[in-house]
Order: sequence, then C-alpha cells, then structure tokens
Amino acid sequence: MSPNHLDVTFAALADPTRRAILARLASGEASVTELAEPFAMSQPAVSKHLKVLERAGLISRGHDAQRRPRRLEAKPLAAATQWLENYRQFWEGRFQRLDALLDEMKTEKKRKRTKRGNRR
Amino acid sequence: MSPNHLDVTFAALADPTRRAILARLASGEASVTELAEPFAMSQPAVSKHLKVLERAGLISRGHDAQRRPRRLEAKPLAAATQWLENYRQFWEGRFQRLDALLDEMKTEKKRKRTKRGNRR
Repeated sequence: MSPNHLDVTFAALADPTRRAILARLASGEASVTELAEPFAMSQPAVSKHLKVLERAGLISRGHDAQRRPRRLEAKPLAAATQWLENYRQFWEGRFQRLDALLDEMKTEKKRKRTKRGNRR
Repeated sequence: MSPNHLDVTFAALADPTRRAILARLASGEASVTELAEPFAMSQPAVSKHLKVLERAGLISRGHDAQRRPRRLEAKPLAAATQWLENYRQFWEGRFQRLDALLDEMKTEKKRKRTKRGNRR
C-alpha cells in the first residue's frame, strides 16, 4: 500500500456516515436501499458516500446485477490498521506510565491516611 | 471518544507529511525547525500541518517556552486503532480464506502434475 492509498483510506474514514456504512457491511453485503434505511438521508446523498468508499477501495460491488449489493473489502482496512499498529507500543507505554502514576498516588494517599489515623 | 473526534483524527491522518511528522515525534519531542528539516517545505507550510495535528489532539506543545517542542499524544491514536480493531476479525477471516484457496489451488496443480507424470 503506497502512502497515497493511506491518504484516501483515512480521508474516507473521516466521516460518521461512512464509518456506519462500513460497520453495517461488516455483517454482510447490502443494497444501496438497505444501506440508506438507517440514515435520515436521501439515496443520492448515501450514493455519494458510497462513491468515496468505493474510490478508497473500502467497498466493492457484488455480482447480482439487479441489487448491485455493496460489500466490505479487507485490504485497505488491514493497511490502515497496520500503519496505526506502529504506534501501539507508544500509546500503550504512555497508558502504562499513567497507570503507574495513578497507583503511586493512591498508595501515597493511603499512606498519609494511615499516618493520620495513627496520630489520633 | 465521540464520533466527531474520530472524524478529525482520521482527517488529520489523511496526509503523508502529517503522518511523517507523527512518525518523527514517536521517537521524541521536536521543535518546529527540527520537524521542518526533512521536508522540502517552508516552515509556515509545516506549521499549517502542525495546527491540523494539534486541533486533532494528536500532538501538543512541550513546556520549553523557547523551543516550544511538539510531542505526540497517545489518546487519539489509541481511539483510531480501537475503531479499526473492530474490523480485524473481518479482514483476518478474508485473508485466511484467501490463503486456504491458494493452498487448495497449489494442491490441485500438484495432483494434476503427478497424474500427468504417471501417465508417461
């Protein structure tokens, strides 16, 4: 996957309707009418979103010529995940340090409370 | 993370320069001058990209008032990874089916070759 592919993939993912369409397609193929149903949106508006997803290679058209169902494509999702995977170590490290800090603060608070209790 | 946060995160990631800046910052804080160095780009152009990343919460400014170093922030990267994680099962399943299909084709080819060999 070239950087250019990641550009169009991430741009396509930057919209809640398009992400909802992908979520729906993860459970199986669906026609444009079926995809439009859950949205308070005209079919042409949904078709526009589908075009963006198709250009990004995130969806393709099934074989049924009548229904022309859309289906989810694996490759761009895998490539985007792979790019973000490079940063997992970074953010997991950050969260671990934050957890350690919180634990330290809790222990310190307990220690102070016990001290105060002993003084009484 | 609300859907809106994912919108700005994914939009910010949809650019090769911004992704390269994040990659650089994953190895430590850097000033704007240091960040501009590897790109054939003016400092104002780089600053524009930094503003997009900052608005998305992907970077923040360090404490040194002179250098104003930028640093990578963990939370939006974790949220974007989490969203894409929902699809891992989907694309891993697809790739496994593809692998199985390729194996089947190889076995079939071998079988045919052996058959032809036996006939000679």
